[in-house]
Amino acid sequence: MSEHIVSAFDRELEGVQAQVMKMGGLVEKALLDAAEALELRDEALAEKVRAGDRAIDGLEEIIQTECARIIAQRAPAASDLRTVLTVMRLASALERAGDYAKNLAKRSLVLMQAAPVGTASGTIRRMARLVVQQLSDALDAYIARDAVKAREVRLRDEEIDQMYGGLFRQLLTHMLEDPRTITASMHLHFIAKNIERVGDHATSIAEQVIYLVEGEMPSDDRPKHDAVTARS
Amino acid sequence: MSEHIVSAFDRELEGVQAQVMKMGGLVEKALLDAAEALELRDEALAEKVRAGDRAIDGLEEIIQTECARIIAQRAPAASDLRTVLTVMRLASALERAGDYAKNLAKRSLVLMQAAPVGTASGTIRRMARLVVQQLSDALDAYIARDAVKAREVRLRDEEIDQMYGGLFRQLLTHMLEDPRTITASMHLHFIAKNIERVGDHATSIAEQVIYLVEGEMPSDDRPKHDAVTARS
Repeated sequence: MSEHIVSAFDRELEGVQAQVMKMGGLVEKALLDAAEALELRDEALAEKVRAGDRAIDGLEEIIQTECARIIAQRAPAASDLRTVLTVMRLASALERAGDYAKNLAKRSLVLMQAAPVGTASGTIRRMARLVVQQLSDALDAYIARDAVKAREVRLRDEEIDQMYGGLFRQLLTHMLEDPRTITASMHLHFIAKNIERVGDHATSIAEQVIYLVEGEMPSDDRPKHDAVTARS
Repeated sequence: MSEHIVSAFDRELEGVQAQVMKMGGLVEKALLDAAEALELRDEALAEKVRAGDRAIDGLEEIIQTECARIIAQRAPAASDLRTVLTVMRLASALERAGDYAKNLAKRSLVLMQAAPVGTASGTIRRMARLVVQQLSDALDAYIARDAVKAREVRLRDEEIDQMYGGLFRQLLTHMLEDPRTITASMHLHFIAKNIERVGDHATSIAEQVIYLVEGEMPSDDRPKHDAVTARS
C-alpha cells in the first residue's frame, strides 16, 4: 500500500484476498499430495487428502459469506464491486479444484488395488505439478493485477492439453494390448481429465485477471481448451 | 404473494428468480436436445446446442451481477442475504450443467463419425431425461421452498447413479469383446459421467433448498453420490 489513507473497503478486501491465497495454498498441496499418493501408492497420504477437502470447502463458505457482507455493508462502486465478484469466482474455482484433488485421492485408493498401467501415474504426477504451477501463477497474477503474467498462464494451458493428449494415447495402447488394464486405464483417464480441468480453472482465473485489469475478456488468440477431438 | 405490502427487495428477488427459472429451462432443453442428437445422430441439433451455450452463460452473468446489485443496494438482513447467495449458487450450478450439455453435444458430433456402441446412446438419453426431471423438480422445490420435494430429489439421485453403473458395465463388456469400440466407449463413458454430474448439481440445489427452509444441511441419510468404486 503506497497510499496512507486506506478505506475500510480496501482493508476488508485485503483480508478476504488473504483467505483466497490460503485456500489456493491448500488446494495446490492437495493436488500435489494426491498425485504423489497415486504414484507412490501411499494410502495414508491419499486418505489425508480426502479428509482435508472439508477445510477447503469451509474456507470457500467463509469467503463467500464475507464477500456478501462486504457488498452489503460497503455498497462498493462498479469497479470495486467487480473485484469482489471476481474474488467470489476465484473461491468457487478453487473449491472445484479441491474437489478434483479429493476425487484423484479416492481413485488412487482404488488404483492401489490394481497393477500399475505402464508409467501413467508418473505422467499424471508431472501433469499435476504443471497444473499447480499454473494455479499458483494465476493467483499471483491476480494479487499483482498483472495482465502480462495472466496471459502467460493462459497460453501455457496448451502444454497441459498436450500432456493429456499424450497420456490418452498411451492409455489407449495399454488397453488395446492388454484388456485387463481397461478398468485401471479408465480411472487414470478420468484423473488426467480432471487435472486438465483444474488447468482450465487456472486459465479462467487468468482470464478474470485480464478482465479486471483491461476491462475486457481476452480475444481467442489461443487454441480452444474445451475442444473435443477424437483424442479426448 | 398473500401480503399486500411487497418490499423492493422482494420484488427484485422475484425478478432475479424468474431469470434463474428461465436459465433452468434453457439448460433442460439443451440437455434433452444434446441427448436426442446423440441417439438420432442429428448433427444440426448438436450444433444448435453447442451454439446455444452462449445464451446460458450470458444469463448467468446477468443473474450474478443483478444479485450483487441487490445486495449492495438493499443490504438485506441475514436470512434474505442467504436467499440471494443461494440464487447465485443456483445460477452457477446451472451454468455448469449447461457446460455439460455443450460438451455432450460436442462429443456426439465426434461419435457420429464412429459405429454405434450397442444401445448405449439410448441408455444415455434415458439418463438425460431423468436428470432433467431432477433439475426441474429441484428448481420447483426452490421456488415453493418445499423441503419435502427437495428431499425426494435428493433420494432419487441414487437411480441416476445406478443407471450410470449399469452403463459403465455395458461399455466395459463392449470394450473387452471388441477393442475397436474403445475410443467411442470412452466418449460415451465421459458423457454418462457428465450427466451423472448434472444429477449431482440437482442434488446440490435440493440441499440448498433444505438448508434455506430448515436452517441446516440434511444429514447424510442416503448413499454418498461422490463415492468412487471400481465401477466408476
